Amino acid sequence: MAEGLVALENRILSGNADEDCDCKNGMFNGLTRRRVLAAGFAAGGSVLAAGRAMAEAPPGAVEYPVQPDPTKEQGRTILDDGGYGSRSQFENELRWRYPTASLDSSWSMTPLAAGFGIITPSGLHFERHHGGIPAIDPQTHELILHGMVDQPMRFTMDDLKRLPSVSRLHFIECSGNGLTEWAQPTLKTVQGTHGLTSTSEWTGVRLSTVLEIAGIKDGAAWILAEGSDAAVMTRSVPIDKAMDDAILAYAQNGEALRPEQGYPLRLLLPGYEGNTHIKWLRRLKVSDKPFMTREETSKYTDLMPDGTARQFSLEMDAKSVITFPSGAMKLPRPGFYEVTGLAWSGRGAITKVEVSADGGATWQEAELNGPVLPKCHTRFRLPWVWKGEEAVLQSRAVDDTGYTQPTLAKLVEVRGLKSVYHLNAIQSWHIAPDGEVTNVHA
Amino acid sequence: MAEGLVALENRILSGNADEDCDCKNGMFNGLTRRRVLAAGFAAGGSVLAAGRAMAEAPPGAVEYPVQPDPTKEQGRTILDDGGYGSRSQFENELRWRYPTASLDSSWSMTPLAAGFGIITPSGLHFERHHGGIPAIDPQTHELILHGMVDQPMRFTMDDLKRLPSVSRLHFIECSGNGLTEWAQPTLKTVQGTHGLTSTSEWTGVRLSTVLEIAGIKDGAAWILAEGSDAAVMTRSVPIDKAMDDAILAYAQNGEALRPEQGYPLRLLLPGYEGNTHIKWLRRLKVSDKPFMTREETSKYTDLMPDGTARQFSLEMDAKSVITFPSGAMKLPRPGFYEVTGLAWSGRGAITKVEVSADGGATWQEAELNGPVLPKCHTRFRLPWVWKGEEAVLQSRAVDDTGYTQPTLAKLVEVRGLKSVYHLNAIQSWHIAPDGEVTNVHA
Repeated sequence: MAEGLVALENRILSGNADEDCDCKNGMFNGLTRRRVLAAGFAAGGSVLAAGRAMAEAPPGAVEYPVQPDPTKEQGRTILDDGGYGSRSQFENELRWRYPTASLDSSWSMTPLAAGFGIITPSGLHFERHHGGIPAIDPQTHELILHGMVDQPMRFTMDDLKRLPSVSRLHFIECSGNGLTEWAQPTLKTVQGTHGLTSTSEWTGVRLSTVLEIAGIKDGAAWILAEGSDAAVMTRSVPIDKAMDDAILAYAQNGEALRPEQGYPLRLLLPGYEGNTHIKWLRRLKVSDKPFMTREETSKYTDLMPDGTARQFSLEMDAKSVITFPSGAMKLPRPGFYEVTGLAWSGRGAITKVEVSADGGATWQEAELNGPVLPKCHTRFRLPWVWKGEEAVLQSRAVDDTGYTQPTLAKLVEVRGLKSVYHLNAIQSWHIAPDGEVTNVHA
Repeated sequence: MAEGLVALENRILSGNADEDCDCKNGMFNGLTRRRVLAAGFAAGGSVLAAGRAMAEAPPGAVEYPVQPDPTKEQGRTILDDGGYGSRSQFENELRWRYPTASLDSSWSMTPLAAGFGIITPSGLHFERHHGGIPAIDPQTHELILHGMVDQPMRFTMDDLKRLPSVSRLHFIECSGNGLTEWAQPTLKTVQGTHGLTSTSEWTGVRLSTVLEIAGIKDGAAWILAEGSDAAVMTRSVPIDKAMDDAILAYAQNGEALRPEQGYPLRLLLPGYEGNTHIKWLRRLKVSDKPFMTREETSKYTDLMPDGTARQFSLEMDAKSVITFPSGAMKLPRPGFYEVTGLAWSGRGAITKVEVSADGGATWQEAELNGPVLPKCHTRFRLPWVWKGEEAVLQSRAVDDTGYTQPTLAKLVEVRGLKSVYHLNAIQSWHIAPDGEVTNVHA
């Protein structure tokens, strides 16, 4: 390591480098990249527990013999994987199942701390079902469209695939994301607190296309969407949303939908709570009023402080979370770290993410990794030199409607503590002097 | 089906609908969406051979019992997949291995006709290797940086992951893509003619970051990149490219790089020919001149008509291909189809794609599916009513440098027929009156 770089890191850690930068609590906007990098790199050491070769290959991987010197030995051939590859045997990230009492209605969460960029690998997309995951033959699956239409219709998957299509990158977030975190910090990792959100590139037919073909009658205002799972999941969708950006999606990340995501067909309602994106979609019924299904009366409503229930809170408010560093990690020593995370809004595009290292007293604007797309995860990043002191890391997102992600205190002021769904408050991660990162309310 | 819609399709097929639209050879710009859709949907029928339930699950899938009525029976639980999901057992697309004599140095191609949007599923990313695919333990893998630098350095994977990162969507195309197609149409499908290109979201450290840390000496002009596979693959990279948008990539589509793509580390040179994106990267050496490795002297050069060899043709020229309909498909009957395909340029963003149904005599502008990103696949689409006559479908791309994809005749005029690499000519698909689609030169 070049001597000057070590000297520079020592100056930053001793607090004498402020003349070089617009620096607050170790967060750098003005310092040149080379100097920050130099400081960081000099610190050395690894952050997370070291990976290990597995005794047997983890799910999604095939175990191959490891070559001590791969330049001296022919590698395996491309035929070994049968023409569809799998991840490395050294990678073992998994969705985490929330410990529900029953496996018949359960959910599993995306390992956000291990993610990169904005795409969620399809095998790690969060999963929520209410009656298990059906295995459906696409040759026999049909979508029925009826109710207040000029012409009731029946579509096979081949019919739908012949129609004009569209591809869009969108997040889906379960409105129950964070439901354990209202009153006190409960789950240890970001996978537990925020893992019910994922982003994919979805392809399918615009819902407006099939509605235009069938013809909507005057007065139509809502559409029932029904799944063909054992729960026969049903939700009501406003007709304006159906005609705007809703998609009958049959593909995800360049291939067919995954079974857990509704194979062969799901409804995609960009920005709406996840439960409305009906999976294994088999029926659409047009009506002049909402259908008041179980999922919009006893469930997926927000109990307010005055005892009334807020219904049809469909658009997910702007939210963000720092995924590194995050709960249950340990920073090995003071020095340079890149703070990174995800921000998203169900109402449009993210315009700004700010990061605080002092529990919200001061903020620095993070860099947004382009493309920044509406109703899609946005990756943010900010260089940070941790000097070894206690710190509370937070991020807050702003979307293009001007809405700013609230503090937990502000949110509870309006919503009270009887709510289950739609927690979008700022998340706090406490950094102890020994580097331990924990979930706190601050 | 509403009667008026059938009547409209009949008018279009009988050629009497031109008053409704700006219509050339069945391609519609001005016709209202509803009318085109109506025409298409009335035609009915499915395009491709029907899928079948597999006797055993295809690679990348797990076989689950199919439920005759999934609303009457509990589905499988989320624990069944171990926390890392797989594709449906009804999906069986595979990479296709080009029949090389040896499996030790071979390639396999992405099934472009079965793709959606712009993301290539990581399991279907094309693969080219020269000495097999090594299995490398990321805990022991290192990258060495030396040569004309102030400070030679050695980076572990943990070191690299601590540095500031960036995520970008980029295609990689092998410069040998289409090499069989110069003199005559040879391979039957678009997977064979164009399947050596794929797009992923890549994440890693900018190469400029590590070069800035090490410090580049005056006069440095080229960098050798070396892989740790059995071929010890080496290529020379201009320093300007290294300092511009080159990435040391450790992640792909939201998780670690796939083994076939260079796990744990590859060089990403956006827009450059695929062979330069060195996989299993272990060494970078800075120099004042190129290294003249085997891959830039005996291989990956273009033999010109005058007998000289063009060297370092690094940037991939603009190119496009129609993936539907494409070779070896059969259109079941006249009617509506959505023509779709991919366009890309190694020099920037695609600004326009035009489609012809008459072998290039007339052209219609296709819709580009956003986001349109530089050095990335762009999905294009155009509604088309096929009236059952002979047709030759073509697409041509224009990029933001103003470059237009050439016809094969134009390209051969300049390049002759001794070239192997860098064929970016317009592709022609012949549609016979019976609907058969074949690869032709037109």
